[in-house]
Amino acid sequence: MQASQTAQDIRRQIAEAVAAARETAPLVGSITNVITIDYVANAQLAVGGSAAMVYMAEEGEAMAGLCAKGGAVYINMGSLLPVHEAGVPATAAACAANGTPWVLDPVGIGIGTLRSRLLTAVRPSKPAVIRCNASEAIALAQLWGLDFERAGTGEGGVRGVDATDEVASARGAAVALARETGGAVAVSGKADLVTDGRLVATCQGGSSLLTAITGSGCSLGGVAAVYAAVSSPFVAALTATQIYNLAADRAATQADAPASFKVTFVDELFRAQGADVAAQPFELQEA
Amino acid sequence: MQASQTAQDIRRQIAEAVAAARETAPLVGSITNVITIDYVANAQLAVGGSAAMVYMAEEGEAMAGLCAKGGAVYINMGSLLPVHEAGVPATAAACAANGTPWVLDPVGIGIGTLRSRLLTAVRPSKPAVIRCNASEAIALAQLWGLDFERAGTGEGGVRGVDATDEVASARGAAVALARETGGAVAVSGKADLVTDGRLVATCQGGSSLLTAITGSGCSLGGVAAVYAAVSSPFVAALTATQIYNLAADRAATQADAPASFKVTFVDELFRAQGADVAAQPFELQEA
Amino acid sequence: MQASQTAQDIRRQIAEAVAAARETAPLVGSITNVITIDYVANAQLAVGGSAAMVYMAEEGEAMAGLCAKGGAVYINMGSLLPVHEAGVPATAAACAANGTPWVLDPVGIGIGTLRSRLLTAVRPSKPAVIRCNASEAIALAQLWGLDFERAGTGEGGVRGVDATDEVASARGAAVALARETGGAVAVSGKADLVTDGRLVATCQGGSSLLTAITGSGCSLGGVAAVYAAVSSPFVAALTATQIYNLAADRAATQADAPASFKVTFVDELFRAQGADVAAQPFELQEA
Repeated sequence: MQASQTAQDIRRQIAEAVAAARETAPLVGSITNVITIDYVANAQLAVGGSAAMVYMAEEGEAMAGLCAKGGAVYINMGSLLPVHEAGVPATAAACAANGTPWVLDPVGIGIGTLRSRLLTAVRPSKPAVIRCNASEAIALAQLWGLDFERAGTGEGGVRGVDATDEVASARGAAVALARETGGAVAVSGKADLVTDGRLVATCQGGSSLLTAITGSGCSLGGVAAVYAAVSSPFVAALTATQIYNLAADRAATQADAPASFKVTFVDELFRAQGADVAAQPFELQEA
Repeated sequence: MQASQTAQDIRRQIAEAVAAARETAPLVGSITNVITIDYVANAQLAVGGSAAMVYMAEEGEAMAGLCAKGGAVYINMGSLLPVHEAGVPATAAACAANGTPWVLDPVGIGIGTLRSRLLTAVRPSKPAVIRCNASEAIALAQLWGLDFERAGTGEGGVRGVDATDEVASARGAAVALARETGGAVAVSGKADLVTDGRLVATCQGGSSLLTAITGSGCSLGGVAAVYAAVSSPFVAALTATQIYNLAADRAATQADAPASFKVTFVDELFRAQGADVAAQPFELQEA
Repeated sequence: MQASQTAQDIRRQIAEAVAAARETAPLVGSITNVITIDYVANAQLAVGGSAAMVYMAEEGEAMAGLCAKGGAVYINMGSLLPVHEAGVPATAAACAANGTPWVLDPVGIGIGTLRSRLLTAVRPSKPAVIRCNASEAIALAQLWGLDFERAGTGEGGVRGVDATDEVASARGAAVALARETGGAVAVSGKADLVTDGRLVATCQGGSSLLTAITGSGCSLGGVAAVYAAVSSPFVAALTATQIYNLAADRAATQADAPASFKVTFVDELFRAQGADVAAQPFELQEA
């Protein structure tokens, strides 16, 4: 298949994913941090999903079952509480057992030891999509002991929950993670990178104001779960990334400060149509 | 008493409740889910209440005592944590012991077993108001083993945290719940239903954008608790329902997407005057 | 030193703190309540900080270490969970051990016994800044058994999370707390009071709409932690107080209801320049 045909086919699938989410309102269960949980839920609703948030193991397992047919699950590692120790592995395992696609956001990787234990525990459950920043992609690939080439100087690293690495430097880690899970990886940054281990899409767009509000990455992961319910992991990761770039581009023309930008951004997620998301520019390469 | 006199009397009490909340700033303690807790608190403040949120049993008991004179308590079952196992029953029991009116939102009923255990445990503490959607009303009446007639096809049910039943189909369940508690039940939906087991008020108004933001139901329950501090359960449930319909009607003329709608909606809760809330249309029937 | 020289020097330091936060993006770890955690993080980002929120003891200790060089920590006592029992004292102790400046918000003091135990436990760790309302300042000084003169009638007290005391009546308590910790105390209210136990700054400005939204005090504490990373405790407390007064003054000219006010207010935090914050009026006295 030629690259141009592939890109055209991917654009068609992006448009279909945006429409399918609005038509079928997929049920998405989430375990996500308390900082941005409201933003995650509202972003999921804005793109057409039905959001239900839980923490306890038995509720995560229940959601994994309820979301098995036409739904998906989102697991975000922020603001860990003792309940996560049982809840996260049980929910990921139940997703694997039920064939429920799930999205992992390894936010905060490196703070404390529980996060590392949990990220190790969920590895066999193979997330459909991993959503992260560049430093988190590198740290997760290292934690999982994957072989990958790290571009750039080798400096950088996670700083709290922020990346100090450029997205390009995480390309090897992202491809290795995608090959490990058999799913897709979306690395957010100035230029976003989405890969399924075979193809690498590089996306431009977005606004620096997205980094001036907390939870843009978390809510992008939650939206990726909505699309994982209605499309392939790669298309889900790419659709979520591109609807974020589109909505941020549009919001940036209307707002110049973070709080009004956030309101406008979520409104634009709600308004975005499939054709416009599909037309958002990206470059496609072999991994 | 003729129905028209009753309706007129109820309208007067609605106007008084709106004014009393602003004048007395009733203290309302809440146990509520982490998704929408900020929205609940801001909605309570917008209508004049003083909001304090807790989780632990001893703090819930303390709030039940502090809110006994002129205040109320709100218990919402969303995003359960292990702390709820002790906190919810202890707080409900302390409300009953102190004579503190409290409002129950059984959101998420059916997900996991803890919710069912807690909803069974709080039954003897008799909430002044139950705020729910149609599917939750039916599920709670079933959980409590109440006798009621279920209109419609018998299909439907809770889907995550969303209703698949029409409000009208929950009329029997709502009346049965109100008779069980001796309080009132507010069932939210396209047309809202409020009953004290004797009268049934059916309310129109509102906006579909309320369902595109998370926490509209939760915050309505929190606002009902503010009014339960200053009026009868039936008037509290009806006032909360009607101030939501009024504010949503007004917000829908100013915003056409969810995030800006939410901002405008809370602003309109803040601006709403008693006379306008009382004038919001409803139909009254015998149960 | 003459008072006018001191005030001039303080104004210069305020302008420097505002600029330094934007230039160095100090990492601030927070343990803060789930009601307003999103508001705290977004306010910290708006003034230039990098926000990371945790709860567990090992993560709080890790953040205290990560924030030792050029960062700070914020501990807010709202919406306590069982995890706080270990997390709060461990994090405060780790800040003391690492020399990491930390800010304490004793919100909700008086509700339940855990808060009192925690506030007693963190006393030896000496917060750089205490941010509170008048009633909380008085209650904390009493809890710590400090000698202070209480102006006014002696009535008042904490009501849920709201003050019933005037700021002026907490002057003695605030000075005593500052002398106890060797840091600064910011008492928020209609007129704000900031003291390091030697000087007392009284600040005007702000908007009553700040009290109509939940979390204005919490997020002010979080912002004080950002400035504590780049300036002295007194300047940090004063800069946070004054950027709040400036942003609220500006927001109040644009919005007349709480939800739109909050959006505008955070936007104005983002826009505020050091010179304008420094020019915000305050009066300086000997304590």
